[in-house]
Amino acid sequence: MTTAVERAHVVRGVAQAARQASRSIAKSTPAQRTQALHAIADELVANAPAIRAANEADLARATDLAPAMRDRLTLTDASIGKLAAAVREIAAQPELLGRVEREETRPNGLVVQRVRIPLGVVLMIYEARPNVTVDAAALCLKSGNACILRGGREALESNRALLRAVQAGLSRAGLPAEAVQLVPTTDREAIAELVKLDELIDLCIPRGGEGLIRYVAEHARVPVIKHYKGVCHVYVHAAADLDAALAIVDNAKTSRPGVCNALETLLVDRTIAESFIPRLIARLGDRVELRGDDTALRLGVPRAATEEDWYAEYLDLILAIRVVDSLPDAVAHIEHYGSSHTESILTRDPAAAEDFVRSVDSSTVMINASTRFADGGELGLGAEIGISTTRLHAYGPMGAEGLTTTKFVVRGSGQIRS
Amino acid sequence: MTTAVERAHVVRGVAQAARQASRSIAKSTPAQRTQALHAIADELVANAPAIRAANEADLARATDLAPAMRDRLTLTDASIGKLAAAVREIAAQPELLGRVEREETRPNGLVVQRVRIPLGVVLMIYEARPNVTVDAAALCLKSGNACILRGGREALESNRALLRAVQAGLSRAGLPAEAVQLVPTTDREAIAELVKLDELIDLCIPRGGEGLIRYVAEHARVPVIKHYKGVCHVYVHAAADLDAALAIVDNAKTSRPGVCNALETLLVDRTIAESFIPRLIARLGDRVELRGDDTALRLGVPRAATEEDWYAEYLDLILAIRVVDSLPDAVAHIEHYGSSHTESILTRDPAAAEDFVRSVDSSTVMINASTRFADGGELGLGAEIGISTTRLHAYGPMGAEGLTTTKFVVRGSGQIRS
Repeated sequence: MTTAVERAHVVRGVAQAARQASRSIAKSTPAQRTQALHAIADELVANAPAIRAANEADLARATDLAPAMRDRLTLTDASIGKLAAAVREIAAQPELLGRVEREETRPNGLVVQRVRIPLGVVLMIYEARPNVTVDAAALCLKSGNACILRGGREALESNRALLRAVQAGLSRAGLPAEAVQLVPTTDREAIAELVKLDELIDLCIPRGGEGLIRYVAEHARVPVIKHYKGVCHVYVHAAADLDAALAIVDNAKTSRPGVCNALETLLVDRTIAESFIPRLIARLGDRVELRGDDTALRLGVPRAATEEDWYAEYLDLILAIRVVDSLPDAVAHIEHYGSSHTESILTRDPAAAEDFVRSVDSSTVMINASTRFADGGELGLGAEIGISTTRLHAYGPMGAEGLTTTKFVVRGSGQIRS
Repeated sequence: MTTAVERAHVVRGVAQAARQASRSIAKSTPAQRTQALHAIADELVANAPAIRAANEADLARATDLAPAMRDRLTLTDASIGKLAAAVREIAAQPELLGRVEREETRPNGLVVQRVRIPLGVVLMIYEARPNVTVDAAALCLKSGNACILRGGREALESNRALLRAVQAGLSRAGLPAEAVQLVPTTDREAIAELVKLDELIDLCIPRGGEGLIRYVAEHARVPVIKHYKGVCHVYVHAAADLDAALAIVDNAKTSRPGVCNALETLLVDRTIAESFIPRLIARLGDRVELRGDDTALRLGVPRAATEEDWYAEYLDLILAIRVVDSLPDAVAHIEHYGSSHTESILTRDPAAAEDFVRSVDSSTVMINASTRFADGGELGLGAEIGISTTRLHAYGPMGAEGLTTTKFVVRGSGQIRS
């Protein structure tokens, strides 16, 4: 049993060590950080047997885990190899730190630059996915940050084994092991303690179920980047190519229904509803549970959608279907029920497409593409550390650059202000 | 007397109206926003007599205000004219919204853009400076946001009169008056209510004393951009031009001692302390209270600095002076005692200057210039809405662009994800 005082002490110690280490990482050279990333990849592969053994211990304990969660927890030689490859890819991304984003010479001769720098200390809070341990460590290191990892109870042994590989890699590059730390306790109260340490931690990214994220948001004084859920919409416009629309809707709904960029509500323009919905039923009806409004029911959708369905993030093979009268109606539905994640319009009418793009203020707005592309890697950010549906700092998928900020550098020659 | 329930009701009503209005503002055209800004400037000038009368009522009530605060509260025809001119300057700034910040075509043909959009609803909380009412309204409008203003009790009548001019200007351009609202109550509990409404308000910027800012940070669930204080440092390096250094230190300390970018602690390299400090005493000694460490005392500084002085934001004609052994010592002092606001190195050695810039992680780092330039206008951002010393979203002076974010716009031709 840990007492509250002991817990606060342990948690603060971790955060203080991270703050200290963040200064070393911020001052390290790009070559050192690249060397550390390659060393981490090497250590992961070399220690695969130990990592698998730890993971087997976690799996043996986790007898009551749902199959999907169990699947996410499992590490194999192949998945460890993929983790190592992802770390090498992050190492190969262009260097961010020190990049001059703007430069202007003022009338008084001052040269004003904005120069990219790390955030400092990043706290990742996540559930049963041990791969986040490695991804987050690598992205934080790439961007010059220290990180504190608070993984799920179910993955504790796996995370410890992965962390040993990460810290061995850091040491081989002459960087402090405290740049990546795992919180030693997995009780929720430790989270509440951590997210209050705003003088030691610069950003918290919670990833997992809505309950975990709300718990973090509730207790945080540290800035939090989060999304609660992804209720993604596809709007099949009057001028849509219906063949392409069927393929996109199928892909958006069924290619990986359990992820946040999967389609949840389909909006169908009334003008094409009679031709499209029966074809949709023919294509998806035996794989996906379809729930529709009155018009959709009349066109053959088997089950009625309730008000709750329009808010639902099913994360499952269920699709809500609503027939709308116009593009503004589709936008109004998204404004009311959406989650600011990702929405896509399918149309051959460029003016309608641009109208949709202007009118929808979600973090990712698409034209004629599957919502499943709302992902840092797919959108060209490299590996993704999270997705933000709040508008401060980052909005949408977030990669290494989202873990940095800029400072003003002002070069003068004796200027004083009048 | 307002009950807690009534207060919560009023505050939520204001925020809901702001959210609604923010959608109209976001969809307005640049021409409409420019027209509104010019109309606001016109209304301010036309209503100057009414604004002055309201201000006189505030001044008559505020009999116990300190002279500096009274000065900040006072509006004259000249200062109202300056406010109108500032609004026209904001109108003339380049348009931000819709700007494509990045564009990339992915291997699968998806065209991925990041397009600048407003944040939504901005809450400004400030004290006795009625000019913030107009500046904030204009900057929020320029950047497509609705704003909620919660000014100080002392300026209530002045703020109401200014708001009438602002809302008249909005109406003349066909924009909703609710895009700029003043919270009708000035009790602190209303602040605590407001900053919890994270589903209606996207950003809170508190400006004022440290007490107010800590109160906001304590209660906020809405993201907050803030700085508690500005403990700015100048480091006179071994290779400094001492004549230029005297002029810069004088300017940084005395040109406006009550503002956050004024110099508070001077760090002097030991190698030049004996030549520099006596000259500094000769120049500033009769205007500024100098407090020094042991070496500075030995060289003639009249009063000893205590540990507390190194943390102090005097906002007054007082200067703490410490003699340091080296550039790393100066950096270590800033790391320990600094506030991440602004620090300047004075040196003719470019390598030392670059070392300082790399090593100091404050939001503004300067070479051979007065800290007084740490200001949105001086650094080329246009009018300033605030300064951030926390690293999320904005770090350093923040103008209209800091009130925006980007969304991803993805243009496809039927792409699905494999």
